[in-house]
Amino acid sequence: MSYQVFDSLAAIDFAKAKGFFPNEAQVSSHEIGDGNLNLVFQLSTPERSLIVKQALPYARCVGESWPLTLDRARIEAETLQAHAKVAPDLVVKVLDFDLEKYAMVQEDLSHLVLLRKRLIDVEKVDNLAEDLARYLADSLYAYSDFALAAQAKKALVQNFTNPELCQITEDLFFTDPFREHERNDIFPATRPLAEELWQDVMLLDAVAELKARFLSCPQSLLHGDVHSGSVFSGPGELKVIDAEFGFFGPIGFDVGSVIGNLLLAWCRHKTLGNNDYADWLEEESLSFWDLFESRFRTLLAGTQDPGLASEGYQSRFLAQVQRDALGYAGCELIRRTLGLAHVADITSLDDAQRSDAEKKALALGRSLILASQGSCDISLIRRLLKPSPVRFAA
Amino acid sequence: MSYQVFDSLAAIDFAKAKGFFPNEAQVSSHEIGDGNLNLVFQLSTPERSLIVKQALPYARCVGESWPLTLDRARIEAETLQAHAKVAPDLVVKVLDFDLEKYAMVQEDLSHLVLLRKRLIDVEKVDNLAEDLARYLADSLYAYSDFALAAQAKKALVQNFTNPELCQITEDLFFTDPFREHERNDIFPATRPLAEELWQDVMLLDAVAELKARFLSCPQSLLHGDVHSGSVFSGPGELKVIDAEFGFFGPIGFDVGSVIGNLLLAWCRHKTLGNNDYADWLEEESLSFWDLFESRFRTLLAGTQDPGLASEGYQSRFLAQVQRDALGYAGCELIRRTLGLAHVADITSLDDAQRSDAEKKALALGRSLILASQGSCDISLIRRLLKPSPVRFAA
Repeated sequence: MSYQVFDSLAAIDFAKAKGFFPNEAQVSSHEIGDGNLNLVFQLSTPERSLIVKQALPYARCVGESWPLTLDRARIEAETLQAHAKVAPDLVVKVLDFDLEKYAMVQEDLSHLVLLRKRLIDVEKVDNLAEDLARYLADSLYAYSDFALAAQAKKALVQNFTNPELCQITEDLFFTDPFREHERNDIFPATRPLAEELWQDVMLLDAVAELKARFLSCPQSLLHGDVHSGSVFSGPGELKVIDAEFGFFGPIGFDVGSVIGNLLLAWCRHKTLGNNDYADWLEEESLSFWDLFESRFRTLLAGTQDPGLASEGYQSRFLAQVQRDALGYAGCELIRRTLGLAHVADITSLDDAQRSDAEKKALALGRSLILASQGSCDISLIRRLLKPSPVRFAA
Repeated sequence: MSYQVFDSLAAIDFAKAKGFFPNEAQVSSHEIGDGNLNLVFQLSTPERSLIVKQALPYARCVGESWPLTLDRARIEAETLQAHAKVAPDLVVKVLDFDLEKYAMVQEDLSHLVLLRKRLIDVEKVDNLAEDLARYLADSLYAYSDFALAAQAKKALVQNFTNPELCQITEDLFFTDPFREHERNDIFPATRPLAEELWQDVMLLDAVAELKARFLSCPQSLLHGDVHSGSVFSGPGELKVIDAEFGFFGPIGFDVGSVIGNLLLAWCRHKTLGNNDYADWLEEESLSFWDLFESRFRTLLAGTQDPGLASEGYQSRFLAQVQRDALGYAGCELIRRTLGLAHVADITSLDDAQRSDAEKKALALGRSLILASQGSCDISLIRRLLKPSPVRFAA
């Protein structure tokens, strides 16, 4: 087993051995990882700049006490490559992947900015809804039962079985935030609202349904973690990164993650009184769905399976994806408020603002999750955001 | 590769090498396979009798032009063993499995009679609903997300991935019978009804949904082919055999296969005027569901996953299993009437009777499939069977 945790020099040697730099080149190397699970080195010479990303055998944010399979590095590289086949301009380029060192060479995207930072900085990102809708529609269609022969898809489902990373989501997304749990991280002023939420049996019913679909609904190869820290953005460019949570799951999970993250930013800006920007976020989340749906519907018309070709079924399929997306968006709002992993959109606010934004996030999340079980459509978001989120009685 | 197709002598040598008979024993051997895919030898001495079942590398019913993976022998042995862990008295005993010869040694069940024969012979089988309900409830619960840890279940889903056998079902169950296809086998008098059926867009929508759930809904380890030719029955005994279609799929598929086969027998006996027996079949199919549901609900209360423990969700889950079961029962009625593989319940009738029974099967199948998309419950079966099946207008 030739796996060794890289330091800066080892990362350079690795990139040189792969032929990305001449042996004699003076390469500078900086570890720039701010994520939870990996080492990320930026390597550069005056001529070129690259990223070497290596998986650690434990969750970096917790430490060696939380061991985590290195196989996630393979899953990440292969998920990015699979999505790049159908949406090449919207996915970070994987230049090399080493199965023994669990390390990947990627293009350097440091000329771009993380979407989360841009959303915090009140920037109206051009083509945001269009790009994210195209990325998800094209990649999620391409690996669905509509596009793949059944036997080919079953082989991919096996290849992308990702039990350890899925379990993180199963626990942190669907289980912990909906009950008292030591992994939760609850802002003191928010605790009474959390305790109220945990009493809502209708909500717990709906979350169970969403968890069950996450466990047993391999509709397509998901990114699995498309939050606004997994998206780089700049003028005329959007690139999705960090696909180690890739697996075959319900399409609405990825779609809902995008919507949930736009709505987390909305909670921030509504609290700050940035109403024009909050309105822009609302419109982006609605047009993201509309563009996704219309593109996916067009792709569905080309299905090669006569057994899945009927239009009535396809409409019902998309309606279910929409309900799932509402529900998973709601889970994202709640798990980012009560669970282990918070977002800077909310935590960077001062205490009074944070309390207000978290109240908004919980109310909105609860409504969206309940809506996922009914016959609401995406326009519910508009009704929930204006003039203030509907609160369901406990 | 030491795989060789057995003849009677090779089957004896195999059983002796495995220690089931002394080397010097005089063993008689008869090939008794009447199924579509395998060789089945009954080996006996005055002291003991055994079955050796070997997979052929092609579909026996079609010939060498339809190659078929030998891995199905492993899937069959492992599915039977998995189900026997939780329902040992209801599953044929697997005494040995040889991964190189794709051959299995099983207990001999020739003191029992195939359920299909007993249903044709107007026999009221004791405990039929009870035994089948207990077999399916116990085995389908044990391998569901409610009972297994998520990582353990994902490993089993990989192990029981069964692409070639699933494709047979995907094609013969959900695709061919609902359109003109060369693999269909349509009784001339029934053809006009088939052509009418193929125009029903609501029906095609519903079948697409059922197919999609068959493809992408790994709720539990199914038997995958529980028709009345896969069940042996005798006084105080019921044994399920032939699990080579085992895979992780929607629970309602197995449940619906049982119901569909009882209703195929109903079509026969209603046509023959055996009304008392037809009523018994109706009651058995309804109590089969009731017993299955009540046993499954009791098991659900013991789930180890707090995220799936809410009662409201569990009720909704069972309601969905019921809708699926109605739909898959309907598909079984239609594919056994129009598709490649027919059943003796219907084909052994004379032409006029066969035409009448097939008309009943198509009408009933259509109604059940349409019902799977709505809010009907199982009592629909009673309404459909009395006084005569409801016909939906084309």
